[in-house]
Amino acid sequence: MKDAVTYELLHKCKQTGARRGIIHTPHGDIQTPVFMPVGTQATVKSLTPEDLKNEVGAQIILSNTYHLYLRPGQNIVKEAGGLHKFMNWDRPILTDSGGFQVFSLGDLRTINEEGVEFKSHLDGSKHVFTPESVMKIEEDLGADIIMAFDECCPYPSTYEYTKNSMERTTRWAERCKKAHKNIDKQSLFGIVQGGFYKDLRKQSAQELIDLNFPGYAIGGISVGEPKEEFLDILNYTTPLLPENKPRYLMGVGTPDYLIEAVLSGIDMCDCVLPTRIARNGTAMTWNGKVVIRNATYERDWNPLDNECDCYTCRNYTRAYIRHLVKANEILGIRLLTIHNLYFLTKLMEKVKIEIEKDNLLTFKEEFYKKYGYEK
Amino acid sequence: MKDAVTYELLHKCKQTGARRGIIHTPHGDIQTPVFMPVGTQATVKSLTPEDLKNEVGAQIILSNTYHLYLRPGQNIVKEAGGLHKFMNWDRPILTDSGGFQVFSLGDLRTINEEGVEFKSHLDGSKHVFTPESVMKIEEDLGADIIMAFDECCPYPSTYEYTKNSMERTTRWAERCKKAHKNIDKQSLFGIVQGGFYKDLRKQSAQELIDLNFPGYAIGGISVGEPKEEFLDILNYTTPLLPENKPRYLMGVGTPDYLIEAVLSGIDMCDCVLPTRIARNGTAMTWNGKVVIRNATYERDWNPLDNECDCYTCRNYTRAYIRHLVKANEILGIRLLTIHNLYFLTKLMEKVKIEIEKDNLLTFKEEFYKKYGYEK
Repeated sequence: MKDAVTYELLHKCKQTGARRGIIHTPHGDIQTPVFMPVGTQATVKSLTPEDLKNEVGAQIILSNTYHLYLRPGQNIVKEAGGLHKFMNWDRPILTDSGGFQVFSLGDLRTINEEGVEFKSHLDGSKHVFTPESVMKIEEDLGADIIMAFDECCPYPSTYEYTKNSMERTTRWAERCKKAHKNIDKQSLFGIVQGGFYKDLRKQSAQELIDLNFPGYAIGGISVGEPKEEFLDILNYTTPLLPENKPRYLMGVGTPDYLIEAVLSGIDMCDCVLPTRIARNGTAMTWNGKVVIRNATYERDWNPLDNECDCYTCRNYTRAYIRHLVKANEILGIRLLTIHNLYFLTKLMEKVKIEIEKDNLLTFKEEFYKKYGYEK
Repeated sequence: MKDAVTYELLHKCKQTGARRGIIHTPHGDIQTPVFMPVGTQATVKSLTPEDLKNEVGAQIILSNTYHLYLRPGQNIVKEAGGLHKFMNWDRPILTDSGGFQVFSLGDLRTINEEGVEFKSHLDGSKHVFTPESVMKIEEDLGADIIMAFDECCPYPSTYEYTKNSMERTTRWAERCKKAHKNIDKQSLFGIVQGGFYKDLRKQSAQELIDLNFPGYAIGGISVGEPKEEFLDILNYTTPLLPENKPRYLMGVGTPDYLIEAVLSGIDMCDCVLPTRIARNGTAMTWNGKVVIRNATYERDWNPLDNECDCYTCRNYTRAYIRHLVKANEILGIRLLTIHNLYFLTKLMEKVKIEIEKDNLLTFKEEFYKKYGYEK
């Protein structure tokens, strides 16, 4: 049976690991590299699918197994005809496995070989996630790309803890692969773990490659470590992954991390950052971040970003958006969300062009001069 | 100098006071009767101007002098080029005078002949509104229709209190008229007060008519009184107003009150109700109200309203909207806001057609059978 999701390589950068390609999915093609907006609870906060298509240009969105399992419950999504129909989004969707969310619950969860027992952050009710149950949930949700149930390490973790955790992640990946049935409709990606130890990263990648997933993610970096460590592990791990399959770096959404990810050979990234900081009143612009609450913008009749042609920047001033944010108006969140997601989409558009021109390193230097580093 | 806003009567119902007309304004014509969505803080909560035009069909919106004076301040709106440019809305706008808001502040305000001293609900800072200062603020905001600064009575109030208050409202109306300069750009409407005493309503109407405003509003009803009293004062007062000028009933937004208002001869109504109950998870439908949080909608794959063709009803199920509302997602508010405003717009569309057919009484009976009474 043919995999639901396949990767087509279009161009490989001559100086770096960057690559330009297409991910084919049951809900259409994705031009890569791509940034995926996050729709945690079956909605990218404040936006309609039309906003995402027409104003943001989103090719694929991510949604959240943990959250949808708790509310409204995967049975309801399944009855609706799957996540696409439930939320009226006809382009590709990726669901994460809930692994990151349940491990982030801290005291509310316990891990054993079988799976994770956890208490809901909503009402304290008890639940268990296993590789098998997560596969069932993700099948019910019906995304094009589904993620294996993995164990995430805190940062920092000891070598031994990380090794045990990584090896369990491999065993769980194997169980996920066995449990996952409809491989012609959904593709299951494995997640490389191994923390900040290169030999463990290598072992994890090799073991998962042996399991022959149709795509691979890198998890457990961009979790609070210094940027040098992030880059070190990223640039070591990405080239370990097969060239003929999509490569996904989880949880990265700052412009400079996105560019670094692409340079290492990553095809897909996701992060709540652009939507979260929008709700907090912060815009990403081609000249760096703008914290719109600041008094300096009270009478600023410019758009958020003079170099941007998004819906928000075409129609509204900084002074108006500042007023909306200060007055706690929903429209302020919505306008900033559109802008931030458009900004990252546009950044990736430019990145794609620069890859094709074998010019991404120069682009990066020029971009950083104006935008500055995030971390 | 010609008045900025004029009324054109198209058809008068043969059985009732209802009338079909056009209000001409500097920002375009308004087909009446009309319901005006409220954009308190220079935004109809959660919606863009495009939503209001394309999805709701709003012809005119109302905004709020008290709120805009406090935040961002009328100077900023003026610098932006007025409210239309500030919020990117090119159709007509009406600003209320802030009278209702400052009187609603209760202990935070004191009234004297000169005006009202009040404390901001935001930070407790002291301010004074006088007829003259309010005219200046409304001129700075630049709406097409501006309201005189009036005194609103609590319900119930004694005859003496109501008479004094109403007579002061007339004196303030006269001061507003003197203070208002640019009558070719903005039209100042007088507000008939007089509580629930017909002779006072008559006196108020007559005194304001003598001042020759280009339009008249009825204030101080729909303030918590029984429906019979509302109807009694409404049906007594509306016919007192000149036939050749727009008539505006303030603060009415339930479907049955809107229909009753139109039957009495009212042309314009506004209310926060449709947008406020949307944020609370309630939809108005042609078969009555739907409280979407209710468990009965958990697996309801119908649209909010089977008889509605709004954006929300064309694209989403009750089950999905319920999920959004229960998960506190902004999109839930937005979808319900679009639906409720569209519902009232559509209701007024039908009302206009029925007036032209001299059939509004029959329509009212049929509508009530399905929708039920609000109060």
